[in-house]
Amino acid sequence: MASRIALDVMGGDQAPDSTLRGALAACAADNPRRLDRARILLVGDEAVIRAKLAELEGVGLGSGDFAIQHASQVIGMAESPATALRSKPDSSIAVCVGAVKKGAAAGLVSMGNTGAVVGAATLGLGTLEGVRRPAISVTLSLTGKPVTLLDMGANREAKPQDLVQFGAMGAAYMRDCLGVENPRVGLLNIGSEASKGTDLLKEAYPLLEAEKGRINFVGNIEANEIFDSVADVVVTDGFTGNVVLKLLEGFSAFMLQLMLGELRAHQAQWGKEALGNLKKRIDYAEYGGALLLGCKGVVVKGHGRSDHVAVANALAVAARTIDSRVNEHIVEGLRAPTV
Amino acid sequence: MASRIALDVMGGDQAPDSTLRGALAACAADNPRRLDRARILLVGDEAVIRAKLAELEGVGLGSGDFAIQHASQVIGMAESPATALRSKPDSSIAVCVGAVKKGAAAGLVSMGNTGAVVGAATLGLGTLEGVRRPAISVTLSLTGKPVTLLDMGANREAKPQDLVQFGAMGAAYMRDCLGVENPRVGLLNIGSEASKGTDLLKEAYPLLEAEKGRINFVGNIEANEIFDSVADVVVTDGFTGNVVLKLLEGFSAFMLQLMLGELRAHQAQWGKEALGNLKKRIDYAEYGGALLLGCKGVVVKGHGRSDHVAVANALAVAARTIDSRVNEHIVEGLRAPTV
Repeated sequence: MASRIALDVMGGDQAPDSTLRGALAACAADNPRRLDRARILLVGDEAVIRAKLAELEGVGLGSGDFAIQHASQVIGMAESPATALRSKPDSSIAVCVGAVKKGAAAGLVSMGNTGAVVGAATLGLGTLEGVRRPAISVTLSLTGKPVTLLDMGANREAKPQDLVQFGAMGAAYMRDCLGVENPRVGLLNIGSEASKGTDLLKEAYPLLEAEKGRINFVGNIEANEIFDSVADVVVTDGFTGNVVLKLLEGFSAFMLQLMLGELRAHQAQWGKEALGNLKKRIDYAEYGGALLLGCKGVVVKGHGRSDHVAVANALAVAARTIDSRVNEHIVEGLRAPTV
Repeated sequence: MASRIALDVMGGDQAPDSTLRGALAACAADNPRRLDRARILLVGDEAVIRAKLAELEGVGLGSGDFAIQHASQVIGMAESPATALRSKPDSSIAVCVGAVKKGAAAGLVSMGNTGAVVGAATLGLGTLEGVRRPAISVTLSLTGKPVTLLDMGANREAKPQDLVQFGAMGAAYMRDCLGVENPRVGLLNIGSEASKGTDLLKEAYPLLEAEKGRINFVGNIEANEIFDSVADVVVTDGFTGNVVLKLLEGFSAFMLQLMLGELRAHQAQWGKEALGNLKKRIDYAEYGGALLLGCKGVVVKGHGRSDHVAVANALAVAARTIDSRVNEHIVEGLRAPTV
């Protein structure tokens, strides 16, 4: 089925429990973004999947109607991606990519080994027409207004032209999937002037300026401004992006710990609700995972720690990205002449 | 006086009020790290300084005994550093640097224009024997255990050898000023293996390994690990460091806002004390400012937003850095043969 989503059942720290529960949650009757079960292709060890689904039926979670595709191998979270992809051609990740390549699915969702997912998707699917390199795109909705950051680590290094394309791809995603009109694209830098930053950024700045007809480039933005809603899309190279992502992850976990400590020390009755709200705002599970933009096919990479809520959100992101035809719009945008 | 600290009274968003109150607070009888007034050289518009000190005396803050050095010009926070340094040779920043250069002071503290302070100090004082480039060093004590990060933005780009020296300088600071024995030095990267990251990092890794006799190199650390006390010193290039610093600044301000919002929404009585404790842990004012390590002289650059508490802390950092002879130890360390 052309709009089907292949789910890597075996990938992630809590797989296959989290992934199968996630698939069920994505299709639950009370889910406002409910997906039809026929849209999900479960990929992994078929015996394990069937046994686990039967167990979940036992606890009242109906399991019928999912399509299942067997994959005999699993790539571990800590394995070297290149080696694992070579030695395990029938891994659940590779089979998911194969399903998209063959047209049996339009997209895939994995909580597994990031390097393996990015590698398998980039090599197996290839890039969209006109796209030089795919980029990992993460949408944060910390402030209530979503901000999409890319590249968060698909590429170790980038060329100025790559940054321009990242801006175009991020803008297409924000427009199509999140309904942001004319998304503002900022370049992550250490100062606002065009002359600031590394050689890469100094070269990318005028290229982005020259694309103003199709990219709403608002100039350099500094890292603290990510929280000020001055841009809808923040473009950076994969190294810096990965540092930013991990820093946010580590710092938010640390802050929550610190708050819990203060609450305990003061025997405060601030309550679970308030803390829950905070956690929700800064929690990974709510983002629904990162998109690998620029591949021929929709690729959603969730966090290894994802629980079933995160898996269900990731499936919803994949469905929305497929349905809103982001990839077509990326190709059209890159093909159009600069106005 | 050889151990005197020149204070740029005119630098900072709230100057000269914050800086003069800070000088008074640093020397207050109830300050556990109390400095003698004779150690502080106030640099700036003499008439303004005298009038302000008289006003503060009126509110019960005695003001005698400070040495004052007139400077007729002020470099604004938003001025272009290079242009401002050329056109304002008698700026308070330049006069502070001049005082250190002449030996009238051993160090300087400024809350002013970062680029101007770094530029004036680097050019005016020169680097320590054996030091290729100075680095901005910031010590966070978020987790209760201090972590020193450098370079946080003195240099836009770095060579592998610079990163090695940043490690050596950061370790000397942690040992001398914060009493950390055999400080663990980590390289900020996007994975733990030696083969990870940019070409810069792949070249720096074996150089740091080769220095294991004098640098306690613990390998690559990822950005989330900054909060896990796996390293006492975290080395990075000035671009990445500046992004990290601004992201932490923006994110902590945002988190505090978010918490205040939740508190209000729940009409919670969590209390000022707990919030105050949190704020203290993540607040700039408590760090006492950034050190520009590697210059001939001690240079402390505080945040432009610094209040008098931050100014007093910055003066204490300068005093401790001078008294513990960090600079001598940096030079000795770089001169010593690798064991």
